[in-house]
Amino acid sequence: MNEIKIYDTTLRDGAQGYKISFSVEDKLLIAQKLDEFGVDYIEVGYPISNPKELEVFRELKKLKFKNSKIVAFGSTKRANTLVEDDNGLKTLIDAETEYVAIYGKSWDFHVTNIINTTLEENINMIKLSIEYLIKNNKKVIFDAEHFFDGYKSNKEYAIKVIKEAYEAGAYSICLCDTNGGTYVDEIYQITKEIYDILGNNNVELGIHCHNDSGLAVINSLKAVEVGCNQIQGTINGTGERCGNTNLSTVIPLLELKLDKRCLKIEQNLKYLKQTVEYISDISNLYNNDRMPYVGDNAFLHKGGTHIDGVRKNSKSFEHIQPELVGNERKTVISEQTGIAGIIEQIQKIEPSLTKSDEKVKNILHKLKILEYEGYQFESAQGSFELIVLKELEKYKSLFEIEDIKITINTPFDEEGSVTAVIKINYEGRRILTVGEGVGPVNALDTALRKALEDVFPELKKVQLIDYKVRVLEEKSGTEKLVRVLITSTDGEKTWTTVGVSANIVEASWKALIDSIEYKLLLDEENDKWMRQKN
Amino acid sequence: MNEIKIYDTTLRDGAQGYKISFSVEDKLLIAQKLDEFGVDYIEVGYPISNPKELEVFRELKKLKFKNSKIVAFGSTKRANTLVEDDNGLKTLIDAETEYVAIYGKSWDFHVTNIINTTLEENINMIKLSIEYLIKNNKKVIFDAEHFFDGYKSNKEYAIKVIKEAYEAGAYSICLCDTNGGTYVDEIYQITKEIYDILGNNNVELGIHCHNDSGLAVINSLKAVEVGCNQIQGTINGTGERCGNTNLSTVIPLLELKLDKRCLKIEQNLKYLKQTVEYISDISNLYNNDRMPYVGDNAFLHKGGTHIDGVRKNSKSFEHIQPELVGNERKTVISEQTGIAGIIEQIQKIEPSLTKSDEKVKNILHKLKILEYEGYQFESAQGSFELIVLKELEKYKSLFEIEDIKITINTPFDEEGSVTAVIKINYEGRRILTVGEGVGPVNALDTALRKALEDVFPELKKVQLIDYKVRVLEEKSGTEKLVRVLITSTDGEKTWTTVGVSANIVEASWKALIDSIEYKLLLDEENDKWMRQKN
Repeated sequence: MNEIKIYDTTLRDGAQGYKISFSVEDKLLIAQKLDEFGVDYIEVGYPISNPKELEVFRELKKLKFKNSKIVAFGSTKRANTLVEDDNGLKTLIDAETEYVAIYGKSWDFHVTNIINTTLEENINMIKLSIEYLIKNNKKVIFDAEHFFDGYKSNKEYAIKVIKEAYEAGAYSICLCDTNGGTYVDEIYQITKEIYDILGNNNVELGIHCHNDSGLAVINSLKAVEVGCNQIQGTINGTGERCGNTNLSTVIPLLELKLDKRCLKIEQNLKYLKQTVEYISDISNLYNNDRMPYVGDNAFLHKGGTHIDGVRKNSKSFEHIQPELVGNERKTVISEQTGIAGIIEQIQKIEPSLTKSDEKVKNILHKLKILEYEGYQFESAQGSFELIVLKELEKYKSLFEIEDIKITINTPFDEEGSVTAVIKINYEGRRILTVGEGVGPVNALDTALRKALEDVFPELKKVQLIDYKVRVLEEKSGTEKLVRVLITSTDGEKTWTTVGVSANIVEASWKALIDSIEYKLLLDEENDKWMRQKN
Repeated sequence: MNEIKIYDTTLRDGAQGYKISFSVEDKLLIAQKLDEFGVDYIEVGYPISNPKELEVFRELKKLKFKNSKIVAFGSTKRANTLVEDDNGLKTLIDAETEYVAIYGKSWDFHVTNIINTTLEENINMIKLSIEYLIKNNKKVIFDAEHFFDGYKSNKEYAIKVIKEAYEAGAYSICLCDTNGGTYVDEIYQITKEIYDILGNNNVELGIHCHNDSGLAVINSLKAVEVGCNQIQGTINGTGERCGNTNLSTVIPLLELKLDKRCLKIEQNLKYLKQTVEYISDISNLYNNDRMPYVGDNAFLHKGGTHIDGVRKNSKSFEHIQPELVGNERKTVISEQTGIAGIIEQIQKIEPSLTKSDEKVKNILHKLKILEYEGYQFESAQGSFELIVLKELEKYKSLFEIEDIKITINTPFDEEGSVTAVIKINYEGRRILTVGEGVGPVNALDTALRKALEDVFPELKKVQLIDYKVRVLEEKSGTEKLVRVLITSTDGEKTWTTVGVSANIVEASWKALIDSIEYKLLLDEENDKWMRQKN
């Protein structure tokens, strides 16, 4: 049995995050993934908020969930109305889930100043709503909205709200730090007090935090320490403002640091990264690369001593084995990488080389100079490999550029306003082509392809998929150095190359040439050709 | 006096973050910004790692810092060598800073298994290095690397390391959770013990955390609770793997939640967001929109009840006033609040205009279209004003471009490789000029100035001080739209203009023309001229 229940609200509170919007299909896919991963609850939506929400519940009923309970979300009935007439509650019942969550006010200020009713009527709304839902065979999770702010404003009232919800029969009571402003010591002390009041009674006590102070994770864990056994959050931390408690951080902390089971299937922790990525993809969300445990860079080493350290023993610079959460170790080339990291990369190409080799020293020297000039290789592995291979005399350029001429005429936005003429020498043969484009780099790209595609037909597969320009700060105004990164693909592999110059056309051109050369290098036919030549 | 010292290591440990690399100029700009903001220490680099680092220190010496101490970073001497012969320490001394930080091992495992020396020799390395640096008039901050892992592995040894560093004369001792894996309760208990050992002695006790468990912020605060008075971190949370303690979260937590002063200038908290954004821009880093306090969405409300609530009273769904940290409230109907803002701007130019005016509607329509095309005016006030003034018929272009021809030839890096010819019509007169430059935009700039400076001599004062290129994601490869921002100054005023096109030359050209036109607009003479015309 898992000790702590994970209550995922990615599909409900997570959808309050900016730019997040789920289709019916999205919700079904995400719910199935969360079930497979093994969370206890999946709060899928607020049926009254949107007509498509009821459709989600209808579709969900057709699916089978192994591990998770589906929860429909809503609020208590409105003030001064009959519970039977409340449209929100009616819709909740129509969702036909066994579990429903409703939120109610526990901060006196919100009762009197925001929903403009009396403290008594608010208690009534909560009690009657819970009782009505139970009468309709629901298990009710009561979210005490703004509970901690409420406690600090009017402790007696906030506690009364909780007690009344309990007495009305709530299956679970969740303490919410809705504004995300409560400091961890207060969460701890207040939750402890509530647990002492309710804990011995058979109610599931939840904690629902927001990350406005950067404390949602620790606030949730401290609440668990004093008796909460349900944590609400979103799998990738999305949600209104700064987001909800990030479950992808909470889950490994519980399982690996605090030795508390929280996933319904033991061993599923290793699917954490995959689950988060799948759901983020469907949410059309870029995860922060630095996200604890699951970020792409969570186990990426850049500093030289760090790379050296993890090679000797991973625990030297990793707090856990990345595989435990389905992540992996990475190292990159950078100024800080120092010799160890670069040698590791060089050895991938030529295993026999060591630190003291003259060739290795030359490569290091060359890289230092290029970095000084504004180059950066950590995201330009393609250019890095070309430099290493050229220095090792394992690769020679297959063609030579003899001459380039670009003309740009107004009106700029007319077809043919930009023309690039290039002359290439390929095995003593001169190839002359001209290309047009929307800008000088595009025109160059067109001309270069025309020139080379006859000789290297495999280049037809190459597509430039990303083009990035960074202005470096060395000089002022339009004389500044620019660094261009080009990412290309041939449908199978993807690689990135780099060029630096004060002339953006030249910087782009360098990256473009590297991109083409890297493709030729990748190609097996070309590999053979190179071996004959060397 | 501030109670807690903020030790920023964005430029050193932050640069261990993936894809982060600072030029000399970047480092100078960031250091000056941090000083202005009011942190206590700025760790700017590891001089032995890279030739350009010493240049940074040389340049820094020429600048004046009001609030911050500049720190050079390095490590203890190597094992079994003479301290006088240690190249790292020598380079540290060459950096000529009053403060230096060195790290040393405090985890027995690292001593014996990673740097392969004896526990005794490691102590020697630490002692001798600190003493040597002190003899060279340095104040020494000793970073006890992996202190918490060390304590858990061999408590006696870890404490001995700290004591020896203290006795050797370290000015400050910093406890590092290098792998970011220590749970908050352990940080609390261990730091408390160390404070009890050292705290009464006059040493500054620091805490340096990493965010691998998502706990760097709370770990730092808990260390402060038991006696640390220095927090190390990076202003936007960058750093190796999951990053360092995010100072942009720690600082407002200290000042607003824990009532502890940490910025050297009271009231500077309101520049938090601006400072973080400036530094992230220079770092070419996209901040997470959900970042606590400073994220673009940290006070963005999407849910209907939330929007309604904050309208009634902001505290209903905001834990602090966003202005306290220089942030602002947004709602997703903020396109409407956007309109309010735009009208406010229009009224600055023409106070009589209101929302329902036809002219205002035209401007809004025009801005919408331009934004759809990729324009963005938040940081391009100059272009924004020109659009408004042109729509209000308060400004007409003073000259017309008839024709432009740019040629770019190889070799790109030779003088004269780029030429721009332009033909301008000024009051019926044709002006024909040619300019050379390091790139097409620089050549255009030169030609345009030649053409106009005779007629508008005040343009001689104008300098382009910043040029930024942002590739937009609309299309693929080199056909992508680019947005160019140009910042100019005439020595008194500074303004920014924008241009968008798939052709980078055209985008730059548009921003360039706006920059020149804006100067003409600013000029009083020209103002008079306009009044005559209108």
